[in-house]
Amino acid sequence: MSENINHEIYTELANRIYDLDAEVYHVLGSSLGRTFTGNRDTTIRTLSMLMYTKPDGHLLRSELALISNMARTIKDPAEKSRLMTEYDEILKAIEQLPNMFGSTDILDAERAALNLAVRREKISENDHLVICISRTQGSAGNDIGFELADKLRINYYDVEIFDQVMKRLEAEKDNVQDKENFTDFNKYGKKTHESLKTKLKELNRYHGLSKQDAVFFNMSDLICELARTEDCLIMGRCADAILKNNHIPHISIFISAPFQVRTQHVMDVRNMDMKQAVRFLKKMDKQHKKYYEFYTGEKWGKPENYDLCINSANYGIKETIDVIKRLLNQQTQ
Amino acid sequence: MSENINHEIYTELANRIYDLDAEVYHVLGSSLGRTFTGNRDTTIRTLSMLMYTKPDGHLLRSELALISNMARTIKDPAEKSRLMTEYDEILKAIEQLPNMFGSTDILDAERAALNLAVRREKISENDHLVICISRTQGSAGNDIGFELADKLRINYYDVEIFDQVMKRLEAEKDNVQDKENFTDFNKYGKKTHESLKTKLKELNRYHGLSKQDAVFFNMSDLICELARTEDCLIMGRCADAILKNNHIPHISIFISAPFQVRTQHVMDVRNMDMKQAVRFLKKMDKQHKKYYEFYTGEKWGKPENYDLCINSANYGIKETIDVIKRLLNQQTQ
Repeated sequence: MSENINHEIYTELANRIYDLDAEVYHVLGSSLGRTFTGNRDTTIRTLSMLMYTKPDGHLLRSELALISNMARTIKDPAEKSRLMTEYDEILKAIEQLPNMFGSTDILDAERAALNLAVRREKISENDHLVICISRTQGSAGNDIGFELADKLRINYYDVEIFDQVMKRLEAEKDNVQDKENFTDFNKYGKKTHESLKTKLKELNRYHGLSKQDAVFFNMSDLICELARTEDCLIMGRCADAILKNNHIPHISIFISAPFQVRTQHVMDVRNMDMKQAVRFLKKMDKQHKKYYEFYTGEKWGKPENYDLCINSANYGIKETIDVIKRLLNQQTQ
Repeated sequence: MSENINHEIYTELANRIYDLDAEVYHVLGSSLGRTFTGNRDTTIRTLSMLMYTKPDGHLLRSELALISNMARTIKDPAEKSRLMTEYDEILKAIEQLPNMFGSTDILDAERAALNLAVRREKISENDHLVICISRTQGSAGNDIGFELADKLRINYYDVEIFDQVMKRLEAEKDNVQDKENFTDFNKYGKKTHESLKTKLKELNRYHGLSKQDAVFFNMSDLICELARTEDCLIMGRCADAILKNNHIPHISIFISAPFQVRTQHVMDVRNMDMKQAVRFLKKMDKQHKKYYEFYTGEKWGKPENYDLCINSANYGIKETIDVIKRLLNQQTQ
């Protein structure tokens, strides 16, 4: 029954599409000819099938785009408006059909619920604007993060600040002190340098964790605590993965630039020659990757692990900040 | 001489920073204590050095952020405003210093000149809004592209449309016909299936190019021609790399989603079971990668090769379109 109704709708729509193509061709007389070159009956059958079948339904979209691309070139405003209106109505009718192209969303509801850039308004008073920025060395990511936080008037945290805050928080407890800087991170290389005695001492001290892991878990707690209590921007520290795992809303952004541009930037900023800069960048990329993948199990710098990735070389510092602000627009208004 | 002047500025700024920290601490009485725990002279000397030396100048930024993070927690509005004003002034003065953090841009001027999302206005009448979208299979990239083009009222081109247009353009000339669909692309696997006779015949026909290459170069010409003459959105076809190489302004966007989410999407849209969907996605990812890297020499899907990468799973179709529209905001207004 409902299938019969659908068939009728399909045939009706197919007829309207066929007629629209004919009309556009009539008005334009395009040298490329009509979109549909077969006879009416065959074309109607084919179009109906496209509306009916998976996975080829998306081919209908291309046929429609081909007609509308042509219709948009019509010079006479009245004719153009008439035919584009008919096109819009056909498109709208097709979108109402079950299982038609574009009707199946890609949304990952659980993850999207954490994506602050999607939200139109704060969900609760306890909802904070938390921006996590990962960046490759030499992409000016820190400059961008610092200035963005300053423009948004929110707190800024980078590795040096975390080190300082952790030291102070833990000083009284004489507990974990984050002397373990990120730049020293070498999960695998380190093992050879540690004596068994040192290891056992540390395992004992940090409740069975290596000192490095203890530092990471304390850092994770601090990041969750910050994100729950204030608006802030956090540079690196796997903050995106930590907040995702703890179901705390945030925006995750990855900033990078082509290796060649980063090399030049490092040469400028760090007074290095090209050879030094290349060696430095390769080392830092490797450490970043290892650190992120060790603690998160996710790939560092893959677009599908962030809400957004930006190529800072194509914008420059000021424009990258502007792009992020435009992305947040609905949020900060 | 100019170095002496700088030294005086450094000392003056270091004193202001030290005093600001002391004042913030005085107002707040933070349990974390002051940012600077050393005595005045030592601290001033350290801060001056940070302003003077590379590459450690960026450490100063962390110290400043630490002070301003605390200052923002001051409850009394008048006190907060007074100290934040002093902070802003110090920051501005530091930014004026030569070679200070944030003063060396990451901009790749040549590439940025092609990035339409940077521009505030059209440069000339011949300047067109050209959006190139690359996407992974199953990320709903085509749905997003089609709907975005429709919303922006610009022409939409995908592989099926290119195939049709090319067929028509070439039909009269009985020249290259794009029966070579992207899905058939297998640059290396193909060689074993081709007889030497077929190869020679094709080489002859396409002026020394293989048929596949001839199709690609004709397609490239068509893409450049389109981008030079109209506003349009082009799906795939290495359009971003083609336009970049031909110095034609455009916006390049990469749309992807986690493999797991894409698998579910393909199962929904194409009526496949999980095993089929996974096999299909792996095959398509491999083909996309091979095609893009063969013709462009660039890595497919690396953030530094695009203006922007979006994770469609974290937004859904409608919101992804909205994000891109927000990115273009300045352009389309």
